[in-house]
Amino acid sequence: MGKGSRLYFRLVSKSVVLHTTLHNFTMRKLVLSVAMSLDGFIEGPNGEYDWCFIDKDYDFAEFFSRIDTIFVGRKTYEMSSEMEGGPAGFPKFKEYIFSTTLQQVKDGATLIQGDIKSEVTKIKQEEGKDIWLFGGAKLTTSLMNLGLIDELSLAIYPILLCGGKPLFSNIKDRTQLSLVNTKTYSSGIVSLTYNLGQK
Amino acid sequence: MGKGSRLYFRLVSKSVVLHTTLHNFTMRKLVLSVAMSLDGFIEGPNGEYDWCFIDKDYDFAEFFSRIDTIFVGRKTYEMSSEMEGGPAGFPKFKEYIFSTTLQQVKDGATLIQGDIKSEVTKIKQEEGKDIWLFGGAKLTTSLMNLGLIDELSLAIYPILLCGGKPLFSNIKDRTQLSLVNTKTYSSGIVSLTYNLGQK
Repeated sequence: MGKGSRLYFRLVSKSVVLHTTLHNFTMRKLVLSVAMSLDGFIEGPNGEYDWCFIDKDYDFAEFFSRIDTIFVGRKTYEMSSEMEGGPAGFPKFKEYIFSTTLQQVKDGATLIQGDIKSEVTKIKQEEGKDIWLFGGAKLTTSLMNLGLIDELSLAIYPILLCGGKPLFSNIKDRTQLSLVNTKTYSSGIVSLTYNLGQK
Repeated sequence: MGKGSRLYFRLVSKSVVLHTTLHNFTMRKLVLSVAMSLDGFIEGPNGEYDWCFIDKDYDFAEFFSRIDTIFVGRKTYEMSSEMEGGPAGFPKFKEYIFSTTLQQVKDGATLIQGDIKSEVTKIKQEEGKDIWLFGGAKLTTSLMNLGLIDELSLAIYPILLCGGKPLFSNIKDRTQLSLVNTKTYSSGIVSLTYNLGQK
């Protein structure tokens, strides 16, 4: 499995589909959808993704059908830029790149540099489908601490990595979650979807 | 909720019951059954357990019916000794206390001080029901690293604690798990049960 397809798979998981038919009537949701070990890591101690196998029963199309926009942090943007357009089968999304250091981003993408809270709130209020928080860790922390993430969709892999990069770090406050969906795969992956309350 | 009942509940979760009827024909299993936040903590940053509510749908009796023995680390033993016999409804288990410093333990309990691997293997080979690894963190680490834990039964609470005591720390090797059971509760708790392979 290549670097591109691994990243691609890591960041995709199952989600609730109800919202797809409602997106014109409610504010767009910002969804953090990611693969995680049972002990809460998204990378092993040496940056490993090899534990993150592709489950043949995963329905990528279902998740993609509710998304038309992705949020990408600077590091993830630079990594995915090396993929020459991304892995095969990746739909065309509207991309927002978050960075305090970049001066410009690729054609078609939008650079977000200013007040994240007001910029993201404005995007969420626009008409459209839901938004996928594609990564990475620093952007996730910022958006969590600003209370801007609406949904977590975690694919829990049947492994203890016992170290590495935790999905959540430097989050200021404990966060209550509301479970909205679970799905168990024969491979041993369990998909858990939660709503987050507003701060 | 008192300290005793909190501890009592934290360490109990649902499990697969098949083994109860088979225990005379297979080696006893050592089961780590514990409540954990979605981000992998068993205590908050200041030792909090207040997130660990009691779920009225939890079937304690089912878990207790397959257990007749508990393993307890020194710190957990000293903490539970303050409970004057433990919380109401706690069945009478055979207790093994693991400590390198204690010289004696209460009547009826057995102190394990020597070679943990051979002592635990001997107990697991004895006739009896399964064994509950009651706590705490240091004993869990030792038993994990020796490959002596057979089953994880984790009650995943719908909260991000964002810090505190991780369930697993200082585990030497990544550990592949085999999912055997999931159960979702209306409270938002998800119970995940995994088998561990032998090292």
